[in-house]
Amino acid sequence: MKKFTNIPSDIVFESALGFAAAHSGLVTLNADPLFFARRHPDRSKVAIISGGGSGHEPLHIGFVGSGMLDAACPGAVFTSPTPNQMLAAAQAVGGEAGVLFIVKNYAGDVLNFQMAMDMMDLEFASVLVNDDVSLDTSAHGAGRRGVAGTVVVEKMVGAAAERGDGLGDCKRLADKVNARTASMGVAFTSCTVPEAGVATFEIGEDEMEVGVGIHGEPGRRRTQVRSAAEIVADLLDAILKDIAPVRGDEVLLFVNGLGGTPLMELYLLYREASEALVRRGVAPARSLVGNYTTSLETAGASITVTVLDEELKALWDAPVVTPALRW
Amino acid sequence: MKKFTNIPSDIVFESALGFAAAHSGLVTLNADPLFFARRHPDRSKVAIISGGGSGHEPLHIGFVGSGMLDAACPGAVFTSPTPNQMLAAAQAVGGEAGVLFIVKNYAGDVLNFQMAMDMMDLEFASVLVNDDVSLDTSAHGAGRRGVAGTVVVEKMVGAAAERGDGLGDCKRLADKVNARTASMGVAFTSCTVPEAGVATFEIGEDEMEVGVGIHGEPGRRRTQVRSAAEIVADLLDAILKDIAPVRGDEVLLFVNGLGGTPLMELYLLYREASEALVRRGVAPARSLVGNYTTSLETAGASITVTVLDEELKALWDAPVVTPALRW
Repeated sequence: MKKFTNIPSDIVFESALGFAAAHSGLVTLNADPLFFARRHPDRSKVAIISGGGSGHEPLHIGFVGSGMLDAACPGAVFTSPTPNQMLAAAQAVGGEAGVLFIVKNYAGDVLNFQMAMDMMDLEFASVLVNDDVSLDTSAHGAGRRGVAGTVVVEKMVGAAAERGDGLGDCKRLADKVNARTASMGVAFTSCTVPEAGVATFEIGEDEMEVGVGIHGEPGRRRTQVRSAAEIVADLLDAILKDIAPVRGDEVLLFVNGLGGTPLMELYLLYREASEALVRRGVAPARSLVGNYTTSLETAGASITVTVLDEELKALWDAPVVTPALRW
Repeated sequence: MKKFTNIPSDIVFESALGFAAAHSGLVTLNADPLFFARRHPDRSKVAIISGGGSGHEPLHIGFVGSGMLDAACPGAVFTSPTPNQMLAAAQAVGGEAGVLFIVKNYAGDVLNFQMAMDMMDLEFASVLVNDDVSLDTSAHGAGRRGVAGTVVVEKMVGAAAERGDGLGDCKRLADKVNARTASMGVAFTSCTVPEAGVATFEIGEDEMEVGVGIHGEPGRRRTQVRSAAEIVADLLDAILKDIAPVRGDEVLLFVNGLGGTPLMELYLLYREASEALVRRGVAPARSLVGNYTTSLETAGASITVTVLDEELKALWDAPVVTPALRW
């Protein structure tokens, strides 16, 4: 294993110290229990809190800031944070307007967020993000997995909370964005969890995993590496079958790198996907390209499509000032 | 070779089409000769133009926009752009205030930018960026290499041009920033140029290349992988010997990923480097952490330090609206 570490089991905390130092104008670190909160929280609004296993950065900690998350709770690598992290984060940033938890659909996350909610003395609601259309079940939980579409939910719901939407409206919006969002990815390589020290799975020199999860979980099938055009066609078929846009619809097209793929290739995928959408009469009216929901150093990428309407476009375009997303 | 491509020799152009589509609000693509320019150029100011081989994205094309570059010319992968690209870009965005070319110090780039300048009918100047302190010479040219410090030069000089500084002042500033900036990196893996199809160099399972270039060039030495703390101490020793900050100085600390290293590790390096600077009495007053000057999918990172003063801090903080850097 070749990684920049000192003691592999300390990587999450040592990295958190660096993140806090690099972005001290935007976020504060609570060391124990571990969470990040906005430097300048606004307790009069609904607090939007997410969290999950580390190793997917910038998700979620990179999205703490004005217009997006109020707090984020990083777990160990590929491991759910503990209920006391979520509870402490909620106490730190929540107020009378209540707290919305954004939870990716994995058994560990669902269980731990539920335990936190059972102990809450503030109003709260939660949304389960399950945008991955590659499989109906996951090795990490029951039902579809939550993957890169989580970024879209966090951005749009964060903007809604920022403009003053109440808890019920934020919850309805979160479910709406999740229902209109679908994702699927492929991986060329595995990744190495620092404490494990060995690759999560083996893959041949000319193979790819189609429908891979963000923890190196298996996908739909193992195939030979195909052209970018063929890969995109395959992913978009599954995505569009799920969200079923109609001719004339506008969509957000998000090409997400899994960590080890150069931007040059992500933009090439964006071109293939945007042209394929246009051929189907669907307009990629908004774009996001980059490494936003990663799986450590995995070489691979996912495509996420969200069907927009005027409200969602406005929420996407609303100002955001976070370490990883800013406009 | 596993990459998202259709025809490997077309990767730069297909990717450029995707970049133009994803960022159509900020940039325009000129297909032949290939360059990107701002969507809304301002010909009354000094035009800042850079370029270089592709494979280092987001450098340079991701930095076209308000407050940074006016145009960028991508060459083939790890290959200088041609003089007619730079000339066409200068004609498209330059005016009476003149053009400043930002050139990384490699023989091919120096030669081709010089040929473009020989044909210019606008006022012009150029700066050679050579921030890499790992070696005095490069396989790609004579003298120190230009690496991630180029981002710092482009940001600060872009801000100066935006506020109306003249060509001579922009040139002096560029040389000043370059003189105050030093970088050095390490790589754990090689990378594969798409048209070559095989790794640029071989490296053992427990080895790293210290002082690696951004094209997979050899560095100072090949060693066993060491701890993050030891790596950072080694890099900072060389960097601080070069720029020689004194106690009380403020610096920009920039931890740059080479493409295949997770953000988690880059933030861990940031923590090590910032604490090491503080121990020497130097304050990391500004930060940048991420993949900004990459070497395709290389696992590795570099550290860049720029000694700040009030002018440079203001130029760093000035607004920037580009695909890859925005505040």
